[in-house]
Amino acid sequence: MIFTKLQTPKGTRDHLPSEVDQYRYVENRFRKIFELWGYQEIRSSTIEFVEALSTGVGSELVDSMFKFQDFDGKIVALRPEMTAPVCRIVTTGMPSIPEPIRLFYICNVFRYSQSYVERGREFWQAGVELVGCNNPEADGEVLSLLISALEQIGLKEVRIDIGHASLLKDLLKATGLDEDKRGVLQNLLGYRDEARLQKFMEQNKLSPKLRETFLKLSSCRRLEEVSSLSLGSPKYGKTGDHLRNLTGLQDVLVDCGIENLVFFDFSLTRKIEYYTGIVFEASVPNLGLPLGGGGRYDDFIGQFEKAEIPAIGFALELEKCLQALSAQGFQPQKREKTRVLVASEFRDAAVRAVNALHNAGVIALLDVTKSNKNKFMKYAKLAGIDYVILVGSTIEEPVTVYDPKSNVKTNVRFETFLQHL
Amino acid sequence: MIFTKLQTPKGTRDHLPSEVDQYRYVENRFRKIFELWGYQEIRSSTIEFVEALSTGVGSELVDSMFKFQDFDGKIVALRPEMTAPVCRIVTTGMPSIPEPIRLFYICNVFRYSQSYVERGREFWQAGVELVGCNNPEADGEVLSLLISALEQIGLKEVRIDIGHASLLKDLLKATGLDEDKRGVLQNLLGYRDEARLQKFMEQNKLSPKLRETFLKLSSCRRLEEVSSLSLGSPKYGKTGDHLRNLTGLQDVLVDCGIENLVFFDFSLTRKIEYYTGIVFEASVPNLGLPLGGGGRYDDFIGQFEKAEIPAIGFALELEKCLQALSAQGFQPQKREKTRVLVASEFRDAAVRAVNALHNAGVIALLDVTKSNKNKFMKYAKLAGIDYVILVGSTIEEPVTVYDPKSNVKTNVRFETFLQHL
Repeated sequence: MIFTKLQTPKGTRDHLPSEVDQYRYVENRFRKIFELWGYQEIRSSTIEFVEALSTGVGSELVDSMFKFQDFDGKIVALRPEMTAPVCRIVTTGMPSIPEPIRLFYICNVFRYSQSYVERGREFWQAGVELVGCNNPEADGEVLSLLISALEQIGLKEVRIDIGHASLLKDLLKATGLDEDKRGVLQNLLGYRDEARLQKFMEQNKLSPKLRETFLKLSSCRRLEEVSSLSLGSPKYGKTGDHLRNLTGLQDVLVDCGIENLVFFDFSLTRKIEYYTGIVFEASVPNLGLPLGGGGRYDDFIGQFEKAEIPAIGFALELEKCLQALSAQGFQPQKREKTRVLVASEFRDAAVRAVNALHNAGVIALLDVTKSNKNKFMKYAKLAGIDYVILVGSTIEEPVTVYDPKSNVKTNVRFETFLQHL
Repeated sequence: MIFTKLQTPKGTRDHLPSEVDQYRYVENRFRKIFELWGYQEIRSSTIEFVEALSTGVGSELVDSMFKFQDFDGKIVALRPEMTAPVCRIVTTGMPSIPEPIRLFYICNVFRYSQSYVERGREFWQAGVELVGCNNPEADGEVLSLLISALEQIGLKEVRIDIGHASLLKDLLKATGLDEDKRGVLQNLLGYRDEARLQKFMEQNKLSPKLRETFLKLSSCRRLEEVSSLSLGSPKYGKTGDHLRNLTGLQDVLVDCGIENLVFFDFSLTRKIEYYTGIVFEASVPNLGLPLGGGGRYDDFIGQFEKAEIPAIGFALELEKCLQALSAQGFQPQKREKTRVLVASEFRDAAVRAVNALHNAGVIALLDVTKSNKNKFMKYAKLAGIDYVILVGSTIEEPVTVYDPKSNVKTNVRFETFLQHL
């Protein structure tokens, strides 16, 4: 019985003060840059109707949701991501706000993952959505902001891998293959194994033109290579539009000066159904998993209301960002403030000293234990106190200042001590 | 179908940007003062085992929890309050931290309330716990911090009502009445109706001494009156200790200079079982409900592990604090920053202008819509933009600055515009 009382459920955990400080550092940096770029913060309800959260997100995400019955008998779930909630809010809560609407969020989301057993079931995300605009400029803004945000927290060597959800979908559809075989083909693209890809396409009798298209796109590593591809104007769905879109984006990236940080990956999909345009992931070397990602979803908001409202956004996982910072040897430090412990036999004088320290912006703790010198010095050492001051009957009298690390004590006027801090 | 897609479950809601700003204002103020007083922030898992959350909190809170089955088949719930999680963390996560431990949290909690239908089912709390110390000094620190925190956010006329959980429990037990009748007596104390109280006690044959004790305590409005009560040394449980405890607290409150803000209310219980010492609620005039409250719980942590660790804490509800501020005519304002919209036919120049504005700490939005002047001026007006600047082929050329409110335009060098902000 004691056992479960002291544990938290699998995949959930607490954050102790030093970790909260690190989270706060990253959150504050992200908040600052999102605001500078004109994005405004929203908070959504943690609990939503399953129906609102499930719309167009794909079965993997739906399966991963923590679902339960509300007190009113309705089936609700904890939000597994923030794009669907933001879209719901945009359609219901912000009718008077002109488009483009720029929103951001920093919040926890909840997912149960079978594929990653070790993965947290509650984790924190910071993300933005740019709603009401569907041109390469909007795509470029979001990619620039993603890179800037990661650089702002101190990360180096940030890179973006970018694909195009509809380009891949349209070409896969053009193969005429069934769902299973399309899945195989998609996986082969992901493996970047040209020989096996060739063989599979020959075996499945794809047209020479289509085979060439797959091979060429699969070998591109840069958007500029995609732009310069001569694909003999293939008419598979809207592939021509998608390619022009990517060419336009490349121009924007050059103007933003980030074209060297962006890499093309034809096979990238992000496994979320609602994406219609570019999809992307941000990463740093040697981390294994991406820090986050996003994409364009021009038909998604239309599933909440009839209007067609294009949008693009990304979400970053705070824990991965902290892991990346740590892997790069960067320890986000809270600005260390001096901590003072005030002890006294005379409570009114001690309270006045503590108040004066607080008013000066100094972290000050009253020794509520009324313990002897040995005890409060031991406490001060363990609790990371910088100075212990022993106050007499009034704060006009000199105070004794102890340094718990060196055990050195000095007598000094309280005012002098305060000015010295 | 569309209906539920666009709604959130009963008692839950979203916070739009203006509201998030207000929450952030209050949260930041609370965080700042908690940190100044030496408290450190923790975050707990949102989902916990029901058993961990139910320990010693009383049936009302247990009934109000959002419970569901985890993917592992275990019964979990969304935290309805933070004291139990903090106690769990203290017993498992912080063995090397010396006592007293000072912790705070600012987070959302989840409760279903039958008594308040209109009440939110998800709401935000800010609270502290002072762990490892059980004297009037510790009680006084927490009460002082509570008052300071509320004054720090701008509230006026803050008052604290204070009772003593064990004093009331011991005296109710001394009556020998059954549970139901004790409940009636407790309610009569709450109504402050001396005549009905007298009559009930006579009918139920309470001893004259006990009747006198109830009447005297019930009529006290100040701790100093409790201190000066002559109760003929009643020996009901540990009532003598409890009264001495309150007398000691009164002395501390005088030293802290807050004795005039604290009122005694013998009937106050807060309906949470784990309280053992003082219980209290903070309020401002004309709000109806308290802003929050707390109490001492010296036996609670012992239910998680065998050690006896006394503690005291409080929680404030952020929404009520904002309502109180609003009722007092105080509108928490985010420091309004200038917002600039940058438009240009020349994307590279526009990007450079936006970057320069960001680097100067100015909120700048790129006109990603590439619209004409009429359109972006209309957008600027609706979106609260302070200046629209139209950039030429380079930012070395003069820019045209529009004021969307007055429609006045001027030509000026970009550098000059930047310095002017």
